[in-house]
Amino acid sequence: MVPANLSGATRLVPILAHPVDHVRAPRFYNPAFAAAGLDWCQVPMGVHPDDFAATVAQLARVGNLQGLNLTIPHKAAAHALCVRLGPEARRTGVVNTMRLDADGQWSGESFDGVGFVEAARANGVLRTDGPVMLVGAGGAGTAIAFALAAEGARTIHVVDREPGRAEQLVDALRKAFPGIAADIEARGIGQAGLAINATSLGLHEGDAMPFDAALLRTDAALFDIVAARDTELMAACAARGLKVVGGKPMIDHQIAAQIAFWRGDPPH
Amino acid sequence: MVPANLSGATRLVPILAHPVDHVRAPRFYNPAFAAAGLDWCQVPMGVHPDDFAATVAQLARVGNLQGLNLTIPHKAAAHALCVRLGPEARRTGVVNTMRLDADGQWSGESFDGVGFVEAARANGVLRTDGPVMLVGAGGAGTAIAFALAAEGARTIHVVDREPGRAEQLVDALRKAFPGIAADIEARGIGQAGLAINATSLGLHEGDAMPFDAALLRTDAALFDIVAARDTELMAACAARGLKVVGGKPMIDHQIAAQIAFWRGDPPH
Repeated sequence: MVPANLSGATRLVPILAHPVDHVRAPRFYNPAFAAAGLDWCQVPMGVHPDDFAATVAQLARVGNLQGLNLTIPHKAAAHALCVRLGPEARRTGVVNTMRLDADGQWSGESFDGVGFVEAARANGVLRTDGPVMLVGAGGAGTAIAFALAAEGARTIHVVDREPGRAEQLVDALRKAFPGIAADIEARGIGQAGLAINATSLGLHEGDAMPFDAALLRTDAALFDIVAARDTELMAACAARGLKVVGGKPMIDHQIAAQIAFWRGDPPH
Repeated sequence: MVPANLSGATRLVPILAHPVDHVRAPRFYNPAFAAAGLDWCQVPMGVHPDDFAATVAQLARVGNLQGLNLTIPHKAAAHALCVRLGPEARRTGVVNTMRLDADGQWSGESFDGVGFVEAARANGVLRTDGPVMLVGAGGAGTAIAFALAAEGARTIHVVDREPGRAEQLVDALRKAFPGIAADIEARGIGQAGLAINATSLGLHEGDAMPFDAALLRTDAALFDIVAARDTELMAACAARGLKVVGGKPMIDHQIAAQIAFWRGDPPH
């Protein structure tokens, strides 16, 4: 269940969550730390929102702290505690990664967007010259949309089961990237070179499909951010011969960028 | 370096220390937790004495906290924070194990003494009817002396390289156990049925011997609390045909008793 050689020399990366039971991130992060030759351990801690700021302040004084990971519901509160913010944190208003700098102040950044972009690039599906269809305008979808826009994407269609959320993201994109063609046009899927599932649909067997694979161009690519399993959407797109990328490379690229940040590199 | 399946369901047992780098306890505790079928993780945290009380207060609010372990220099401060104390903690004034009870108050206990007694019993060397020679009157030696006296030991000789420490322990033993014959008579080693190394001598190759094995009766037993390696003293006693027990069983029995305590059992 636990490492044979965790020791006092191990550097800690607590991941703060509430509730904490469902957190499975250490299964990705700890092997990645080991593969990078780092004696670090990501440790889930269940912290109530009321205790968040005080817990972070106390953890700042722990001698073998390497950094912090934040997940639901702490990402906006983490943003508020950081004196220095990376570009993705500034764009999205959330922080999932914190580092204590030499002056005792926190630097914060989010890495969902860079994780997506680098995974898409590494897998040859970073298609920013044609239209992109983004399904899901929550935290991950927002990070991905901004990162794609920052990479030069010209046309992004956004849909969400809460239409207001999609509209809000489109407005924010237009404000941040005045030249962009962003809309909430679901029929855009027929022209998209890249379609993205940024919802959690597919995480559980029997989930509804986030969209109909049959609507996609045969030369389109699918990026499904669900990492825990191969989704039915991925299978349907693969059956049509489309290029398909799952969520695991996004996690791997995110972790690589986070490790560099925790080591002290400036954010991307 | 770290567990493949550490997750949000894992219960934490932080071990607070300062400095923390040298802490190797997780190499004993984490395999013991796993062997007991417990998804628990002992996590070393470097906490300065000035931060001790505030850190403990904040950890009390962590949802997946199972309990705390305390080591140098926090054992007396831990004693002061506990509303309920087990018998060994009351006798010795130190706590190495804390549990948050349902009423939000800490229970504390020390388990060095019970670990020693149970390991000695399991290995057939709990010889309380004859004289005992105890070398080392520090924290471990004190815990062992009190636990042996509580088990009915009638005669205990105590020596320490700081004679005042040995005298202090003998005085405390006499006060707590009025019928006991306790003294600082080094020559008692010739009559002892059980000799105990409760110093750290032997932890490193080339350390001086804590005492001369040749002085022991051939039917005496040696208990050497050094757990990290087989000491030169152990080898010398074994060469003379004496029964020899090393420090590992003491750790194993201590951990078993601590697990029961963290699970909510009343202290022994």
